[in-house]
Amino acid sequence: MILYYAPGSCAIASHIALQESGLTYDTRRLDFRRNEQRSADYLAINPKGRVPALVTARGIITETPAILAFIAHSAPAAGLAPLNDPFRFAQMQAFNSYLCSTVHVAHAHRFRGSRWTDDPAAIEALKVKVPQNMADCFQLIEDGMLEGPWVLGDLYSIADIYLYVLSTWLEGDGVDIRRFPKLKAFHDQMAARPSIQKVEAAHRA
Amino acid sequence: MILYYAPGSCAIASHIALQESGLTYDTRRLDFRRNEQRSADYLAINPKGRVPALVTARGIITETPAILAFIAHSAPAAGLAPLNDPFRFAQMQAFNSYLCSTVHVAHAHRFRGSRWTDDPAAIEALKVKVPQNMADCFQLIEDGMLEGPWVLGDLYSIADIYLYVLSTWLEGDGVDIRRFPKLKAFHDQMAARPSIQKVEAAHRA
Repeated sequence: MILYYAPGSCAIASHIALQESGLTYDTRRLDFRRNEQRSADYLAINPKGRVPALVTARGIITETPAILAFIAHSAPAAGLAPLNDPFRFAQMQAFNSYLCSTVHVAHAHRFRGSRWTDDPAAIEALKVKVPQNMADCFQLIEDGMLEGPWVLGDLYSIADIYLYVLSTWLEGDGVDIRRFPKLKAFHDQMAARPSIQKVEAAHRA
Repeated sequence: MILYYAPGSCAIASHIALQESGLTYDTRRLDFRRNEQRSADYLAINPKGRVPALVTARGIITETPAILAFIAHSAPAAGLAPLNDPFRFAQMQAFNSYLCSTVHVAHAHRFRGSRWTDDPAAIEALKVKVPQNMADCFQLIEDGMLEGPWVLGDLYSIADIYLYVLSTWLEGDGVDIRRFPKLKAFHDQMAARPSIQKVEAAHRA
């Protein structure tokens, strides 16, 4: 399998999951500053012009929640998801859906306002509410969605990987993670995992 | 199971899936004009203050992609998802993730701009690009994501139900569905399904 990613993007979640899965994989880095995600070569892989994209033997999968679940399904021994419990699996996917459709979107209004308006003043206005929206999202997570110590209580899963990645965006979005003690403890435990340190070093390189 | 929904919301997708599943279920309607989604009673069910929410024997599931997949898992005989093919399942979930994190979000900037800014001028500005963004999303769907006749080619699934619901928003968003012949044929076939007509009538009542 080959993962297409860009440093600093949510694609690092899929990279970490691949690393923890034990599966054999390769990666291809895109440079967003050079707009490589809009190149004809990449649009042939993902017409949406976004990362991540995972090239598999059967075809291409996009969108973080789907890629993460596919990795978990492809490596059952790695224990990355409650594959045999549709209810817990659905809770995990609900969490990941919230991250992609609400938390990631709240964050994106800081850098990607031009997706939703061409008005320069409105693009600036969208940046203002990002700290409040991100804080509101993570307050909900702190107050109950993060069962603790992991998202699904004692069950570590791909939801933890995805949550960790989005929690690393808080500082840049003007939110002090120490407002959320349970999340902070979770974040620190995740940051200490060798798999995550290895992938983060590769993205910084 | 009990589904909480509001008329005109994406929760109708979960309602249609329940109807097609053959499972026994009940529904509770929330009135967004009376802000019932922010009532203490409802926030105890879904602290996010959104619909849909599905109350099950084991707990509550939120977020459309997760609820749809849970319904499909709970009624394997209904054939609402490729449950035994992780790759096709991931493709289906990738499609549903795109709908929730990009298409629904593009639409929401028409009515829900106050989620992302408190500036009245910016809220107005966000409405301008909605037709273009929705058209761009559905052009991608038309050009390849909708394999045809169903999202997954010959395999009908919950992705079709979700796509149908979001395609009914195009007219209000200023996009003529006839620009997309494959989508239009898909939409008309879905609209003729008795299950969908029954649920749509209940939501209009």
